[in-house]
Amino acid sequence: MPRYRLLIEYDGAPFVGWQRQTNGRAVQQAIEEAVAAFSGETTSVNGAGRTDAGVHALGQVAHFHLVRDWPADTVRDAINAHLRPEPVAILEAEHVGNDFDARFSAVKRHYRYRIVNRRAPLAIDDGRAWHVIKQLDAAAMHVAAQALTGHHDFTTFRSTECQAATAEKKLDRLDVTRDGEAIVIEASARSFLHNQVRSMVGSLKLVGEGKWTAADLVAALDARDRAACGPVAPPDGLYLVRVDY
Amino acid sequence: MPRYRLLIEYDGAPFVGWQRQTNGRAVQQAIEEAVAAFSGETTSVNGAGRTDAGVHALGQVAHFHLVRDWPADTVRDAINAHLRPEPVAILEAEHVGNDFDARFSAVKRHYRYRIVNRRAPLAIDDGRAWHVIKQLDAAAMHVAAQALTGHHDFTTFRSTECQAATAEKKLDRLDVTRDGEAIVIEASARSFLHNQVRSMVGSLKLVGEGKWTAADLVAALDARDRAACGPVAPPDGLYLVRVDY
Repeated sequence: MPRYRLLIEYDGAPFVGWQRQTNGRAVQQAIEEAVAAFSGETTSVNGAGRTDAGVHALGQVAHFHLVRDWPADTVRDAINAHLRPEPVAILEAEHVGNDFDARFSAVKRHYRYRIVNRRAPLAIDDGRAWHVIKQLDAAAMHVAAQALTGHHDFTTFRSTECQAATAEKKLDRLDVTRDGEAIVIEASARSFLHNQVRSMVGSLKLVGEGKWTAADLVAALDARDRAACGPVAPPDGLYLVRVDY
Repeated sequence: MPRYRLLIEYDGAPFVGWQRQTNGRAVQQAIEEAVAAFSGETTSVNGAGRTDAGVHALGQVAHFHLVRDWPADTVRDAINAHLRPEPVAILEAEHVGNDFDARFSAVKRHYRYRIVNRRAPLAIDDGRAWHVIKQLDAAAMHVAAQALTGHHDFTTFRSTECQAATAEKKLDRLDVTRDGEAIVIEASARSFLHNQVRSMVGSLKLVGEGKWTAADLVAALDARDRAACGPVAPPDGLYLVRVDY
């Protein structure tokens, strides 16, 4: 059966997350319904990253198959037409081989976390960044973050609901930069644990505030204990930027 | 009486514009109500630019006066507290002399217009940029735009509802740049006519599509006739960025 790959952008605010849930509307569900509406076929749309409620995507990737072979551009435009007015957009659609799996074929995932660091509330970026009032030392956050890169047991930085078989992961990148009142954290890895980016960002914020030293962050990692993690950062600032294959 | 100057950010989508109207809620009204709520005084908040319905601001400036003298930081925080959850934020408040007038003391206004030029609908930027599907030649738009800078009669590019005494204005800057799928137009002048930026952008889009040549844009300007203007660009992409004094 023809298999299709989608590149997807969405505003996560109105959704319970990527994955279908019983407690509300999921991005996956919105796309599956749009596929059914144009094709008449029921299919499962499988994503590369199971983003949580409120988390956004600039480049989520998903695959699905249909019995009928459609031109890829028709698939893209037809899904977009049926998605309206939901804040989900199919940026690209293409045919892929049956060995392509959006989740299991991925070799690297790139997330971005946005903080707006100022006293005033957010008007334009409300829901799209974490509003942090206390002045953060982004340079100190970046230095401390480097201790988290490489192979580690990330038990401290994963949700207690995480279903991964192991907490051992390799983190390839965790860069913190400031541009005026905006602080951006770029995280890359083959795969992430549930809530890992938001857990790391929440702990880095403590470093930025001066509540934690870089050594405290290392101690939290070494504790391999969820209780050692700082408060988890809200979903508003998190974006799944790109998935590499 | 103490006079206060505000620096204001807002998402224009839910508002009928800056100025009070009979047909809906205005940004000015939201701020005046917040001032009244914390101070107990009724005052008029006067803005530098009368942004239209749906137009955003990153740096609107306004002034008002109260009988009572408050610390400026208290004014900022109290207005912000009372504005919630509306998408309006007071970035700064300060005391100014009674000769300061947000509108008449301004020496330059800077607007930005954002276009997202791609086939897929906007998920993240919906309401915050103009979605244009047809591929635009931003370089041709920039070259053509230079004919609009300088002193001109901008009758073609102003709303028929514009109440300015004269259509003669000096446009200091009209730059068009592309960064990937984003096209940004930066416009600066001492003052603008009603709908001037959106009228110029709408006509420049015709140049970008190849429907108009640079000479057609000059002919439209020279016509001094509102009927010669291209379709006015939507408010979604327009931001009042900064006002100089």
